[in-house]
Amino acid sequence: MFYQLSIVQMSKMLQNLQHILDKGAAFADSKKVEMAVLLNSRLAPDQFNLTRQVQIACDTAKLGAARLSNTVDSAPKHADDETTLAELKQRISDTQAYLATFSEADFANAATQKISQPRWEGKYVTGEEFLMQHVLPNIYFHITTAYAILRHNGVEVGKKDYLGAMPYKS
Amino acid sequence: MFYQLSIVQMSKMLQNLQHILDKGAAFADSKKVEMAVLLNSRLAPDQFNLTRQVQIACDTAKLGAARLSNTVDSAPKHADDETTLAELKQRISDTQAYLATFSEADFANAATQKISQPRWEGKYVTGEEFLMQHVLPNIYFHITTAYAILRHNGVEVGKKDYLGAMPYKS
Repeated sequence: MFYQLSIVQMSKMLQNLQHILDKGAAFADSKKVEMAVLLNSRLAPDQFNLTRQVQIACDTAKLGAARLSNTVDSAPKHADDETTLAELKQRISDTQAYLATFSEADFANAATQKISQPRWEGKYVTGEEFLMQHVLPNIYFHITTAYAILRHNGVEVGKKDYLGAMPYKS
Repeated sequence: MFYQLSIVQMSKMLQNLQHILDKGAAFADSKKVEMAVLLNSRLAPDQFNLTRQVQIACDTAKLGAARLSNTVDSAPKHADDETTLAELKQRISDTQAYLATFSEADFANAATQKISQPRWEGKYVTGEEFLMQHVLPNIYFHITTAYAILRHNGVEVGKKDYLGAMPYKS
């Protein structure tokens, strides 16, 4: 399930994020405002703006997969210097391309892996704890916050845009 | 992992939600405004208000556990008639108490279970799809939206309030 949760579903959510950003761009066009206005929007003065929410969502997916598969040293680096929608969409696509390099076998030891981050000062959690209590809550947090910033500005995004297509069977 | 993802982690997130609401109440007190002002707040005119976000978060956890364990007919019913913080906190506590009745064994067949909802008009998804693509994205969506509504109103909530304590080991 690590592969499904951290690769397949995260790639889907990044696709939904691209779609939500496209809706924002269409809205900006219709209102004759620059997309940069939306990309610089936030819900509180000390909250990260929309651009940063997208960057963090991408890095949460990238570093989640890298740490769970114990390949963090070879993960691609990103400078967080995107300023346009086109650059942010490229960042999302690059992250998805990176996620696509993983297979189920890469997560064979993920559950019991000891995982740390620089800011945890040498402390660690298990891979299962990391996935459940850090990666998943964080990526959904930043994608939902991006959605909320756009929604608050008047973009007509709805739950279906956020969830994406469901694999209904009959 | 179904039990850990849908019971243990969801119960933790509901605890974090209670904590965030308490911070909202302290803020309302300090500003000498009624908590009802925050509970009725939303980020867009056609968005569910804070009260409804909390109710939906609770029901997503409750019905997720019930459907994945194939016990939806015996799940407790809630009238969605909470109007005060005390009532909402009781709703959260009741949901946590319900989640606490489950054990790992209840989810032995969860992954392959065929799961449907009234609004899906007879279509279904597998339990694994339901957990990953419906339950988890939805509960994080509504808790993050509750957080965003409070943050937008000036409540000093931060990522640590949302994530809760991490099980760091050294």
